[in-house]
Amino acid sequence: MKHQHRPARPSDYEAIAAVVDDWWGRPILAVLPRLFLDHFHHTSLVIDGPSGPLAFLIGILSPADPRQAYVHFVGVAPQARRQGVAELLYTEFFALARAGGRTAVSAVTAPVNTGSIAFHRAMGFSVTGPLAGYNGPGQDLVRFDRAL
Amino acid sequence: MKHQHRPARPSDYEAIAAVVDDWWGRPILAVLPRLFLDHFHHTSLVIDGPSGPLAFLIGILSPADPRQAYVHFVGVAPQARRQGVAELLYTEFFALARAGGRTAVSAVTAPVNTGSIAFHRAMGFSVTGPLAGYNGPGQDLVRFDRAL
Repeated sequence: MKHQHRPARPSDYEAIAAVVDDWWGRPILAVLPRLFLDHFHHTSLVIDGPSGPLAFLIGILSPADPRQAYVHFVGVAPQARRQGVAELLYTEFFALARAGGRTAVSAVTAPVNTGSIAFHRAMGFSVTGPLAGYNGPGQDLVRFDRAL
Repeated sequence: MKHQHRPARPSDYEAIAAVVDDWWGRPILAVLPRLFLDHFHHTSLVIDGPSGPLAFLIGILSPADPRQAYVHFVGVAPQARRQGVAELLYTEFFALARAGGRTAVSAVTAPVNTGSIAFHRAMGFSVTGPLAGYNGPGQDLVRFDRAL
């Protein structure tokens, strides 16, 4: 089955917000307020399933640093995993970021998320950390960086 | 005393992250990950105090909607309140947003934050809500809108 991606729309927010905690298996919704769809939908991607989103990527082309792109959040429905969906979304975002003049992309994850660390390594990212207090006191994170 | 503002820098993150929970009197750090300073510092403002930030505003000129500006977060140290500091930061951000071609500005707050609602009303924002599930299931918010 070939997965078709499309640019995200602000109106995707409700359907995405409704599923992320279930997809993660832990409370994660606070990381994804509506502003990310409102203001970055044109650099974000959705793959539709039969009854809602099957996967999505929330991406930013940094307004402050014209070299840098940033992947804020990627979600894949449990039933769509191990099919290359996240690879597809990252590859499309890389192309979109290059087209926007970006030469580097970064992302972060929690140290506990060993699956994400292995995925980013396989996608060619360097892995730094865990970095103590990256997102403030007590919020250690692993950082990923890759040239585009 | 005249407060001097300056553009934020990515390196302001540590000092800001260290104080926000104390300034709010409740856990709020999760709303302000490092990405907001990394990617929006040039549209954000800081007022320095004698030993760290006295106040700051994190603002976004929406990349997806070229009409829209967004105030994500404003913090004022307890000892600097009731001196017009937030008004100063908003007024400067409005000017910065207009210079960037923006014609509207929005923000949100929790319904419990009656001080913020009164402040935005006084600054000329319309007040909508509380809007059920604005930031996902159970996350009701009040929305503020103002022309620029």
